[in-house]
This record gives sequence, C-alpha cells and structure tokens, in this order.
Amino acid sequence: MSIITLLTDFGTADSYVAEVKGVLLSRAPGVTLVDVSHDVPAGSVRAAQYLLARTWSRFPAGTVHLVVVDPGVGTERRALAAQAGAHHFVGPDNGLFTVLPDDARFVALPVLRDAAPTFHARDVFAPAAARLATGARLDELGTAVSRVHRLPVPMPRVSDTAVVGEVVYVDRFGNLVTNIPQEVVRIGAGVRVGEVATGPLRRTFGDVGSGKLVAYVGSGGAVEIAVRDGSATAVLEVRVGALVSVDRGPRA
Amino acid sequence: MSIITLLTDFGTADSYVAEVKGVLLSRAPGVTLVDVSHDVPAGSVRAAQYLLARTWSRFPAGTVHLVVVDPGVGTERRALAAQAGAHHFVGPDNGLFTVLPDDARFVALPVLRDAAPTFHARDVFAPAAARLATGARLDELGTAVSRVHRLPVPMPRVSDTAVVGEVVYVDRFGNLVTNIPQEVVRIGAGVRVGEVATGPLRRTFGDVGSGKLVAYVGSGGAVEIAVRDGSATAVLEVRVGALVSVDRGPRA
Amino acid sequence: MSIITLLTDFGTADSYVAEVKGVLLSRAPGVTLVDVSHDVPAGSVRAAQYLLARTWSRFPAGTVHLVVVDPGVGTERRALAAQAGAHHFVGPDNGLFTVLPDDARFVALPVLRDAAPTFHARDVFAPAAARLATGARLDELGTAVSRVHRLPVPMPRVSDTAVVGEVVYVDRFGNLVTNIPQEVVRIGAGVRVGEVATGPLRRTFGDVGSGKLVAYVGSGGAVEIAVRDGSATAVLEVRVGALVSVDRGPRA
Repeated sequence: MSIITLLTDFGTADSYVAEVKGVLLSRAPGVTLVDVSHDVPAGSVRAAQYLLARTWSRFPAGTVHLVVVDPGVGTERRALAAQAGAHHFVGPDNGLFTVLPDDARFVALPVLRDAAPTFHARDVFAPAAARLATGARLDELGTAVSRVHRLPVPMPRVSDTAVVGEVVYVDRFGNLVTNIPQEVVRIGAGVRVGEVATGPLRRTFGDVGSGKLVAYVGSGGAVEIAVRDGSATAVLEVRVGALVSVDRGPRA
Repeated sequence: MSIITLLTDFGTADSYVAEVKGVLLSRAPGVTLVDVSHDVPAGSVRAAQYLLARTWSRFPAGTVHLVVVDPGVGTERRALAAQAGAHHFVGPDNGLFTVLPDDARFVALPVLRDAAPTFHARDVFAPAAARLATGARLDELGTAVSRVHRLPVPMPRVSDTAVVGEVVYVDRFGNLVTNIPQEVVRIGAGVRVGEVATGPLRRTFGDVGSGKLVAYVGSGGAVEIAVRDGSATAVLEVRVGALVSVDRGPRA
Repeated sequence: MSIITLLTDFGTADSYVAEVKGVLLSRAPGVTLVDVSHDVPAGSVRAAQYLLARTWSRFPAGTVHLVVVDPGVGTERRALAAQAGAHHFVGPDNGLFTVLPDDARFVALPVLRDAAPTFHARDVFAPAAARLATGARLDELGTAVSRVHRLPVPMPRVSDTAVVGEVVYVDRFGNLVTNIPQEVVRIGAGVRVGEVATGPLRRTFGDVGSGKLVAYVGSGGAVEIAVRDGSATAVLEVRVGALVSVDRGPRA
C-alpha cells in the first residue's frame, strides 16, 4: 500500500494536521502516513524547500509528498500536483518545488468553490494526494502547466582560491548547514564563518574536543559548522544568510 | 483495518503516549494510529473539546477516538466509552464529550484494581479502545449511563443588530477562533474585538495586505480574526474569552 | 507485520527523523512506525534510558526499537544491535542499553565506509532495524560482543529507617519521578524532597487539594512527587539528581 508524507508549518497543537489526515484516510483507506515535519517556521518556503530536498528521495517509489507551506492560500496562486521519477507531490505554486529535478512535470489542480479559502491543505491538496496514492495518474488531476513559480536556492560562488556560500538552514542542535557541496572542497581546507575561522575542514565533529568549533561535511552532503556538544548558532550568533567561505588553494 | 486517533495533553517528550500506543498495538494488532494532538494545554478540557469537535467526523466510519485530558484521573470521576454514528470514543467523564451529537450513547467503563490511579489512558482507556477497534460493541464494555458530565460550549448572543460571541481558541499562527458561526453573519459586516474594529468581514486573509488585521470565516465554519503574515493574539493582546461582535444590521 | 519504534533526540523540526523513516519504509515495506519520542534532551543518555525502560516491553513481541541518542556519533564507539526476549534493539554503545535485562545479547554492527559520520541513525541503525523487522536473526547482523558500555542507573540506599533515592526524570507536568520502587515503601510513610516534607505517601494526586504537594507511587512503579494541577519542579525548584527520602520505620 502506498505512502503519503506530510510537510507543513501547521504545528502539532491545533486540529489542522488531523483534519488533513482524516481526509487522507477516508479517501485512501490503508495508506501509510509519515510526518516529515509540521514545525517549519510559519510561512518559510525556504526552510520547506530544504527539508523537502533532503527527504523525498529517501522514500520508496510511489510515495506521494504533501507539502503545504502556503502564506498565499486563498489568493490567486495556483495549486499544483507534480511528478518526478516515481514520486508525486502536491502543494502551492510558490517556489516550494524549485528543488525538484528539472524534468519534473506539473499540473494545476482545480480549486472547487466549497474549498475553505484558508485551508487548501484539507480541501484541495489532501483529496489530490489521496487520488494519486490510490492510483490516479498526474494527468487526471488537472491541466498541464509548463511554467511554475520559481524560487531558486542560493548558489555558492566558486573561484580558484575559495568557495563563498551561505548558511541555508540551522538545525535543532544549532548546527549551521551551508549550500557548499562536498564536491568543491577538500578535508583540511580553511573555513570561515564571516570573519571567524573555524579551523580546517574535518571529517566529523568527533574530530575536535567538546565545546570546540568544527566544520565538516554533513549528512546532507554540504559543509556544516557545529560546536561539539554545543550550539554554533548561539556561539557565533549567526543565522540563515550568514556568509561562509572555504579555501580552495593548493595544499600548503 | 480500523483506526484509533489519540488526543491528549501528555506532550511528546515523555513516555506516556508510547506506553498507550504499545498497549493499543498489543491488543489491536495492525490498527492504524493517528495523533490528533498531544499538545493540548495541560488540563484544558475546553481546548480538547474544540479539537475533538473539529476533527472526529473527518475520519472514516469505524474510527475509535481516544481523548484523555483528565485532571481528575484517579478521583471518583467515571471512565466512559461512547458511540455517535459509526464512531466510538473513550475518555474521562469531565465534559469532553459535550461536543458530541445529542444522540450519542455512553457506557461507564470498569476501572480494575490494578489500573494505575494516575494513568487511566494506558490501563483503562487504551484497553477499551482496542476492544472497540477489534469489533466489540459499546454495550459489551460497560453499563449504560444516561447522564454524563456536561461542560456546555459558550454560545454567542444573536440580536437583530449584532452577534456577540467570544474567542474560544487561539491557534499556532495567533489566529483568534470565535464561537460565531457563519450562518448568522454576512460578508462585509463590521467586526470588533473588544473595542478594536478589524474592518469588514472578508472572504479570506488574502483579501488584506501583509501585516493587516482581518476577520473572515475560518475553515471550521466560524468567524476568525487574524493578522496576515502575523499574529492577532500578539497584536491585539487578547486571548480565549475575549468578546467579539459582528454587526447584523441591514446593509448600509 | 512488524513494528519499529523510534526514540531519539533529533527533534521534529528537521529532516532527520523523516530520512530515517524513508530508509525504514524502503527496506521494510509495510512496517508500522511508532515514535516513542524525538524530544529527548540533546545528548541525554540518562533520559533516553528512562524512556526506553518504561516503554519497550509494552510493545508486542517482535518489535524492533531504534534508540539513537548518540553524542559520540562518528567516534570509535561501537554500533550495536541487541535482543532481549522477543524484542530487538539498535543503537550506539554508550550505555543506553544498560536498562535491558541482564540476559540481553549484543552484536557489533559493521559501519560501512559510505555511512555519514554524523548520521549513523540513517546509514547504520535504520538499515539494521529494517533487516531485523523483516526477519533477520541478530547473529546475521554482526559479531557477538560480550561486554558493552555500561551506564548504571543510580540505585536508592535502603536502610531500616528510610530509603534515600533521587529524582531521575522530570515530566512535562513538572512531576518528579524518583528511583525509589514501590516495593520498599508503604502508603502513609513520610516523604521529603531535600528538606521539604511533602506529606505522607498517598495513593494518587487526587488525594490532595488543588495546588498541594503530594507524593504517590506513579504509573511506572516508582515514587513521584507532584503538585496537583501544578508543577512540582517549579514549586520546589528541584531537578534531576535532587535527593528524596521515604521513611521506613514502623507505623507510628
């Protein structure tokens, strides 16, 4: 039986997630529901992009991903369903899906008149997700659209001497995740967050003592900065958008 | 296979929810568990009523709803199981179930001597929910009771010129949910929270600019007040119980 | 079909739990996933021990428990799988499993070179859990180890006149859970937290008025101290490690 994942900024205190799940289980009996997160900062399409990019491809072929961080709900923004490989997606047309592969296909979902203007997750996206989870093809759900709203993820600048990127996410441990991919750096290179040197790029945070700053390639394949057994965001007082550079010169 | 939903004030940091789920999965193998919320404010029967009322009927026929916000656990308050339509419910007799339809039927569950006096969710309600989920009839679980504890939900006062209601819930976004149903108001009517005018009743919060106050009919069918891309509870400094009025005079 | 429980300190805001679940559902299709908690205080092996000890045996035979509170991830600490009775466990060798029965058996899991040094939950423990959930025997997963890291749980001192234990956990309600088992105390005995007398040991917190301190045997079988409808940790200003004594003298 198929899987539907849920990624929203609804929190877990209110009724919203349960209302969505009630619709999903009513229309796709036996489906397996998996919460990716409901704690996306309210309205942060950027954070949702990051979480979606890190998670969707870990799930089995056939999984449907419901992604609703939707500050424009009830405005004229379109409602989308998408397909990338053997995965399906539903969510608003606000740039969330810019992180999908370039060959992703999209359809615009109809918004019926009785859909609550403030709750398309329940009344538009959940019914569409349930149809996909029970075997409908993408084309059956709406009309194909060739251009969707784009919100490009910031890219690092790579030169012969350095890569300059930025912090794109801060996790619960206070680790700073950058947009600098492992392919353009080497272990031992100098790393700086703003003006602060973190020491050379390491293999893992276990390579430094407790309480020390450390840069390493994180589990998502990008450079991260942490304080072992502590919080880099607290110690460095930096947040999403802070500049990070990694040296690329020949080994000293 | 059947579904059991869980609505409690246990939080998600401790062992309590997992202990309940262990009992449910041991006694009703293969059941689907759905968390409605475990973040009800501790002991708030009022908030649990609101969340239960908004969610239960979204689930398929046959679903069992375990609802345990139970500040009186271990006292003489009764333990109940209930049926409304094709849904079952278990929880304490403290007014939670006042939001069920008037034709709901109730039985009092026996509390065995070895039940922990502080944890009826695990030792009384979960076993009862598992029996209902595996096919037991309500009557098999206990003795019928005709009167249960009632905690009536506050009702708005409706006159020819205005409806005066109150805030009954504040959600994660800081939206103020009132007890004023859409049936007694019309788009364009004047709305006030205390002495503060919010502007006319709109279709959705997308109808005002970012940062503006707006009143609209929310996804639960009642008037809500929000600040678009912000928090009405923070801006207005009001909470549950605050008075809200909506004009009913003839259109100007 | 089998069950995998998850107990971590990953929180629910980031991608980590979902990445683990994606691996589990890809490698053990149809498995039932149950979150014990992801809100263990970051790095607190002690809190994870307590939560594991209270929950694992509530689940059906055949359940696999993934327990990852792992401040030493990526260092030379071993990765373990374990069996106790008909339950399996996977997690780091840092003392988490000291709470399992004495006859638990252990194997060391191989850590492949492509495992992310900061995310063994996804790359080492989840694949092992999926194999156990789909029928692999413990011995197939690694080489038997006879000695694992031990982190003994603090034991109370029992004399003829008193039991002196300590607070081992504080729950969401502010209740103080001690390591004093019900077998060595009797209802009516005098209880003190530090120098503060709580009144005699009661059956449940319903035995005192609202706002009053009360000691009782909690649902885990140990002495707890609460403030009815309040928070004992706030009122007494005590935390994990605070001393608690219960009188054992003959009844007065």
